[in-house]
Amino acid sequence: MTPAGTPLITLLTDFGVGSPYVAQMKGVILGINPQATLVDVTHAIGPQNIAEGTWALLDVAESFPPGTIHVAVVDPGVGSNRQLIYAEIGGGRYIAPDNGLLGRLAARTTPFRIVALTEPRFWRPSVSNTFHGRDIMAPVAARLSLGLEPDQLGPRLAELRQLSGTEVSILANRIDGSIRSIDSFGNLVTDVTAEMLSGVPTDERAQIICDEHETQGIFKTYADQPAMTLMALVGSSGFLELAIVDDSAAIMLGVRVGTPVTIKW
Amino acid sequence: MTPAGTPLITLLTDFGVGSPYVAQMKGVILGINPQATLVDVTHAIGPQNIAEGTWALLDVAESFPPGTIHVAVVDPGVGSNRQLIYAEIGGGRYIAPDNGLLGRLAARTTPFRIVALTEPRFWRPSVSNTFHGRDIMAPVAARLSLGLEPDQLGPRLAELRQLSGTEVSILANRIDGSIRSIDSFGNLVTDVTAEMLSGVPTDERAQIICDEHETQGIFKTYADQPAMTLMALVGSSGFLELAIVDDSAAIMLGVRVGTPVTIKW
Amino acid sequence: MTPAGTPLITLLTDFGVGSPYVAQMKGVILGINPQATLVDVTHAIGPQNIAEGTWALLDVAESFPPGTIHVAVVDPGVGSNRQLIYAEIGGGRYIAPDNGLLGRLAARTTPFRIVALTEPRFWRPSVSNTFHGRDIMAPVAARLSLGLEPDQLGPRLAELRQLSGTEVSILANRIDGSIRSIDSFGNLVTDVTAEMLSGVPTDERAQIICDEHETQGIFKTYADQPAMTLMALVGSSGFLELAIVDDSAAIMLGVRVGTPVTIKW
Repeated sequence: MTPAGTPLITLLTDFGVGSPYVAQMKGVILGINPQATLVDVTHAIGPQNIAEGTWALLDVAESFPPGTIHVAVVDPGVGSNRQLIYAEIGGGRYIAPDNGLLGRLAARTTPFRIVALTEPRFWRPSVSNTFHGRDIMAPVAARLSLGLEPDQLGPRLAELRQLSGTEVSILANRIDGSIRSIDSFGNLVTDVTAEMLSGVPTDERAQIICDEHETQGIFKTYADQPAMTLMALVGSSGFLELAIVDDSAAIMLGVRVGTPVTIKW
Repeated sequence: MTPAGTPLITLLTDFGVGSPYVAQMKGVILGINPQATLVDVTHAIGPQNIAEGTWALLDVAESFPPGTIHVAVVDPGVGSNRQLIYAEIGGGRYIAPDNGLLGRLAARTTPFRIVALTEPRFWRPSVSNTFHGRDIMAPVAARLSLGLEPDQLGPRLAELRQLSGTEVSILANRIDGSIRSIDSFGNLVTDVTAEMLSGVPTDERAQIICDEHETQGIFKTYADQPAMTLMALVGSSGFLELAIVDDSAAIMLGVRVGTPVTIKW
Repeated sequence: MTPAGTPLITLLTDFGVGSPYVAQMKGVILGINPQATLVDVTHAIGPQNIAEGTWALLDVAESFPPGTIHVAVVDPGVGSNRQLIYAEIGGGRYIAPDNGLLGRLAARTTPFRIVALTEPRFWRPSVSNTFHGRDIMAPVAARLSLGLEPDQLGPRLAELRQLSGTEVSILANRIDGSIRSIDSFGNLVTDVTAEMLSGVPTDERAQIICDEHETQGIFKTYADQPAMTLMALVGSSGFLELAIVDDSAAIMLGVRVGTPVTIKW
């Protein structure tokens, strides 16, 4: 879990694209480990939108090499008694508040090791009350990238806090899910995975319904349908999505994150 | 073309600023070559706007050292039979869909070597139907940065596909071009190069007309005119641009990409 | 001031998030020093908004390790006779136009060494009239990161140009400041420092007034007050800020940068 030569640290926050807060975290990390390689996952998570963060973390997890340290800061409870944690999940190492942000990852793969960050000697000497991303999470990530043994960070925890939320309902001839994110092309990504669709016909017997809109069939790629057609396909992250070829399904359908999506066959 | 010690890879996409798709490509690259240096050219290209991408690639090409690997993903045809290619153009190495995205670069400097990406052994083991940037282009770029010989990627191609578009018309006393991009200051960058202007007087005999607006003379820098003045000058990328000193020409003139610009003398 | 092994260079500009101009600067730097580590501070400074840049530079300065080279390009006077400078301030090394952009930093800590950038041999061979960030500041930063002695860049200067602006007024029972920046959460950061507040009671005797809104007490963290409450606290950069717990104070109060803020007790 601590491969030499890959001091790779990613950052995901709700600080907004272009926020100097992100640079502050990077400065702290590089001050401790000048050899760290930093990658921005996204800083465009909606303010304090933990649910949105859970999906972005899930989507990028499998693209990064084992041992990557992912720092995730969507932390409305900063300064309260919420805990900060380290967790190993599916080959990745995560540092985050224990507020459900790692919940989707932990639901897919059981965490191997969870540690509470309680040892101040690995933090910045002076810790603010409002920016633990910079003062605790960043220095801890940097020290892990230098080979610090995670169990030194604090005591083990038995489990992560879960985020309550709507779950997909799977019935004999019907799946009820919802739109969980919208990408920059306006594609509507649902919370229905390829696995959940394993028993569903992919031809025109499958009806996919979103708001008052409907389409038939589950296709392989956008090029399978003509321009301006609403279509369903399994996207690159392994989730069913609704797309309009060469246009924005989000704008054309006028739907949002949370809108129900039903698959019937 | 494969200098040791410069494993520099740039990324240009239409994924949107803050898209986790970009991070997925970076994770794949760094998983293969942890020593790669990654630079974002821009991810703000309009969705599927190949023409916009051609200009951004042209604008940054000469600032990067020889051998830099530029990965460009504006790929509306993903999943169709469009080819992915590797091309060497003017000291840079490019990986892109063969859809015209490299057309402006190739029009300026004849490509030295063009190779179709057809060898799956250099791709990710599992290739999605909708995200070849992550599954084919990113791993190929990473392997090139490690020294892979480009001809191993697939067969040579004779030429790149061109993007059809309006071209500048150059007459004895008149040049007709158009606005090709607008920068963050609201400066209107045209498709008229400094070379095209070599026979044009730079004093007040030169009239530059854009929509119903007009200005005289071609200046050297913004400081040559007082605040709030519409002026023409050759910008830092070598193209004629229209600017309003200390304000946004784009907003004040209310014009857009594609608006005709005429130079008369 | 030139520690080996930390060729860390940050970039702050008003080019806009996603501008290829930023990539051009990075390409130039990495062409000279392929080992440089680049960090974006922000590119979302408002066009030509020097005052906004001064605050962002101040906010990130202490998070970066000593010797970090900060390149700051908010340069409305490019092409005029304004000077470009190198300055050492509080452990950081700065390259910027001498237009007040470093003024807040220099007001906090007296610069140790100020040098005018006048030696063209450290610049790009061909210097444009409109983009000195790419053609002068970037190559100078890269060469400094390789160990160039700053005094080779040009002659010493006695002092930096200051930016005139409103200053905080501190009276016996009253402090008058203003909102100096707004973060992505809508928190209103004032120009009143923790030091200025040292004699102010933190309990309900302290009244903080902004526009027609008022709150009592200066708290430690957002969690000290219930949701939807307007509150004052000293934020992570050491300045008094006004926040609405779990909401955007900027939107709820409808105020802007420059709005006066008064503390009475």
